[in-house]
Parts: sequence; C-alpha cells; structure tokens
Amino acid sequence: MIDAESETRMCDAAITLAFSVLGKRWNGMILAVLGQGSSSFVGLRTAVSGISDTVLSDRLAQLVGAGVVSRNVSKGPPISVSYQLTDAGMEIVPIIESLGDWAMRNLRPHR
Amino acid sequence: MIDAESETRMCDAAITLAFSVLGKRWNGMILAVLGQGSSSFVGLRTAVSGISDTVLSDRLAQLVGAGVVSRNVSKGPPISVSYQLTDAGMEIVPIIESLGDWAMRNLRPHR
Repeated sequence: MIDAESETRMCDAAITLAFSVLGKRWNGMILAVLGQGSSSFVGLRTAVSGISDTVLSDRLAQLVGAGVVSRNVSKGPPISVSYQLTDAGMEIVPIIESLGDWAMRNLRPHR
Repeated sequence: MIDAESETRMCDAAITLAFSVLGKRWNGMILAVLGQGSSSFVGLRTAVSGISDTVLSDRLAQLVGAGVVSRNVSKGPPISVSYQLTDAGMEIVPIIESLGDWAMRNLRPHR
C-alpha cells in the first residue's frame, strides 16, 4: 500500500546535507579510522583497504573543506603531515559506530 | 602528532559493512524517504532530487538484496509496485536522523 502523500514527499535537507559527505564512497571509513586518533596519509591508505592514493587525496580534501578533518604540517625537519578530526568530526564518530553495530546485526557480508 | 599505531590500524569490519550500503550515493536518502512510509518508484524519484531512473533502479535492487527494503507488488488490476523498509531498514532510520542533526549543526551547505 502506497501512502497518500508519497508522491509529494521530499528528502529532508539535513539528510541530503549529511549524505553529501557520507554518501561518497570511503568518507565514512576515513572518519571512523581518524576516530581512533590522528594518522598520516600512508596510515590512512593502509587502514582503508582498497582506496587509491588519488581517491584518498580527493576525499581528504573534501573532508578538510567540509570542516570535519584538519590537516596538520609539523615544522620538521623532516616535515610530516598528519590528519585528525576536528570537533565536528569527533561528534560524528559515535553515530558512525552505531551504523557499524546496525550493520553487524542486519547486513549479510560478502553479497 | 601521529599516533604510534596509526600505520597498522585497520578500518573496523562493521563500519566497512555499513558503508558498503550507505557509502553509495543516494542510498541513505532513499532509506530516509522510506522511513516516512512506503512509496512508489515515481514517489521515490521525486523525493530524491537529482536521481535518474536507472540509478534509482540499481539502488533499490541493492537495498532489496541487502534485506533493508522490500518490493511489494499488489495483485491489481492495475498492478502497482511499492517499496518499504524491512525491520532491518526501520532500525537504521533514527541513526540516519542523527546524521542529519549532526550535519545541520556542523556542515556548511552549498560548498
């Protein structure tokens, strides 16, 4: 049975905004890994299995632009670059963990 | 400062599983719309602004395969097809709403 108003329903602006970041492949996983602490680029590439350097660079730039990740350059030498969550990024970590719990209860792996 | 263990950290299997569904563009928005009640294909296409018929078909097939959406065909005539959340799908709706609240507090629209 189809609800009467279903034809005129619209996706909520808040949810559209949330998935402008989280609906892009890898972004949720990058945030989850940084939820465990700051990381280098190489550390992230290792932790997020299957991501390429180019895509990881692109995603980090998007997450920095969205204000959820910060990029920190140490003076050195040698110069080192690390990525960490901002306060806004930290705030999403428990929600991402809830998604993981939900997935373990409800999704079948390796479909 | 980079955490000592960051080089050997791995993204959690639960979170990888969650984003195998939610990290695909549109899926979170489709689930959020169905969280408001069952919908026809056309109703979903209208509610999820910008999605094409082909992509919506593909995403619905994935969500049905993952066990979070069910496809229901009424006997008719005329035959009508509607989509609704399964119990597993219903369970994710409040978490998606939390993501929306987080986005409204923390993300800048129209970047």
